[in-house]
Amino acid sequence: MKRRREDSSSRIELIPVCSLPEITQGTSLARELVTALRREGIALRDGDVVAVTQKIVSKAEGQIVDLRRVAPSPLARRWARRLRADPRQVEVILRETRRVVRLRGRVLIVETRHGFICANAGVDHSNVPGRHWVTCLPKDPDRSARRIAADIRKRLRVRVGAILTDTWGRPWREGQLNFAIGAAGLRVLRDLRGRRDAFGHRLRATVLATADELAAAAGLVMGKTRGVPVVVIRGFAGLVPGSAGRSAVPRATDSARRLLRPAAQDLFR
Amino acid sequence: MKRRREDSSSRIELIPVCSLPEITQGTSLARELVTALRREGIALRDGDVVAVTQKIVSKAEGQIVDLRRVAPSPLARRWARRLRADPRQVEVILRETRRVVRLRGRVLIVETRHGFICANAGVDHSNVPGRHWVTCLPKDPDRSARRIAADIRKRLRVRVGAILTDTWGRPWREGQLNFAIGAAGLRVLRDLRGRRDAFGHRLRATVLATADELAAAAGLVMGKTRGVPVVVIRGFAGLVPGSAGRSAVPRATDSARRLLRPAAQDLFR
Repeated sequence: MKRRREDSSSRIELIPVCSLPEITQGTSLARELVTALRREGIALRDGDVVAVTQKIVSKAEGQIVDLRRVAPSPLARRWARRLRADPRQVEVILRETRRVVRLRGRVLIVETRHGFICANAGVDHSNVPGRHWVTCLPKDPDRSARRIAADIRKRLRVRVGAILTDTWGRPWREGQLNFAIGAAGLRVLRDLRGRRDAFGHRLRATVLATADELAAAAGLVMGKTRGVPVVVIRGFAGLVPGSAGRSAVPRATDSARRLLRPAAQDLFR
Repeated sequence: MKRRREDSSSRIELIPVCSLPEITQGTSLARELVTALRREGIALRDGDVVAVTQKIVSKAEGQIVDLRRVAPSPLARRWARRLRADPRQVEVILRETRRVVRLRGRVLIVETRHGFICANAGVDHSNVPGRHWVTCLPKDPDRSARRIAADIRKRLRVRVGAILTDTWGRPWREGQLNFAIGAAGLRVLRDLRGRRDAFGHRLRATVLATADELAAAAGLVMGKTRGVPVVVIRGFAGLVPGSAGRSAVPRATDSARRLLRPAAQDLFR
């Protein structure tokens, strides 16, 4: 059998990292990650992208709330009745919320203080030890991504990109996808406008959401129950030269905030 | 260096197929694909998923329209003025449309006759030879996917899944993603409800849109201008046992229509 291009560099590989320990506040994520990579025989390379689920970043950064210490406001109580939810959890959601997008049936969709539009402001019970705890999204997920990339660079001398992912629903379609809520060191959008297709036509409207593509791809490997909080994406050629892993002020292309459509240009809010 | 899990079976690989010729009406896609795979030294395996861009399927199935033969209706003329678009193309869009979701500025978002919600009903100029031609979406993308999987099975004796992809925008977020518009032989949704997370909590709302994850992942490799109309996804463990490649009546899990949220349950239309 011919194998001419079998190991073509244009292939992309999604590599699960399975052996991270339980992450708690103050854990150095990068240190644990480097240990796990070594344990699993995965040698990071320049150009790899490390996709990390929001959950372990939130835990490491202490974005975890003990519901027993939350006093729900009257509004939180009222909405909790409507949603048939824990009023303390609704209170935490409201604190993370900039604007309510939809409150219907048992679904609460909000714009978070970061500008993300998702259910329950990303406040979540799953994969948290103990019944009384919930996690919130990291305060600045781009900064978290930059820190992870920078720490890896320091420890391993490789220049990687990093994304933080969370699992959200979306309008019109069933099922949830992983989205990029933070990014560092990679182009979050590939703007093809003005380029030409195979027949020389100019592409008019094509801007690909690369960071969300990476997040969705990582979701294939992460699952939700299987304890794969990190995926290494190898063979992706979209790193920003020179920027990956720097903890300095990010370039515009470094930020997952660019994936947020300005309200004025959004037909759906 | 340890390489204990280096070739772990839980890795996923995205393999571009680059050498397909220009596809025209009546081309046997499966035959050309098999030839291209051989040329590129890629041996399909049981369990691979073949992601195919809608564009070449539309071409092979003759879903391509010569605008010179289209007489725009008065409505198409009026909307074309608003959209600053070719009235003949708007006419083709209207013929593919079940319902207009948004018409604002230069953006026309519709529900297609299949039930997809996307810009311009998927009617598109790009990667079509000649200025006067546009492609429409395949009439029954699930059937197209089933046919591709079945043909591959016949020719190569391997059982693969197949998805058809198209590139769409979405509300709230910038940039486009590849979505699955057709699927065969794989579970399009992974329903984790009732399963338990790492701490034994029951997951309440997690249904992952696997086929869209596969499509988005393929989009990383396809790009839009680089002539990668097919991506082989290897290592994904979600094929439906026994169903892949059958041309018989599909199981419920075979259909990308399951990704369409019923209007009654959709908060956004």
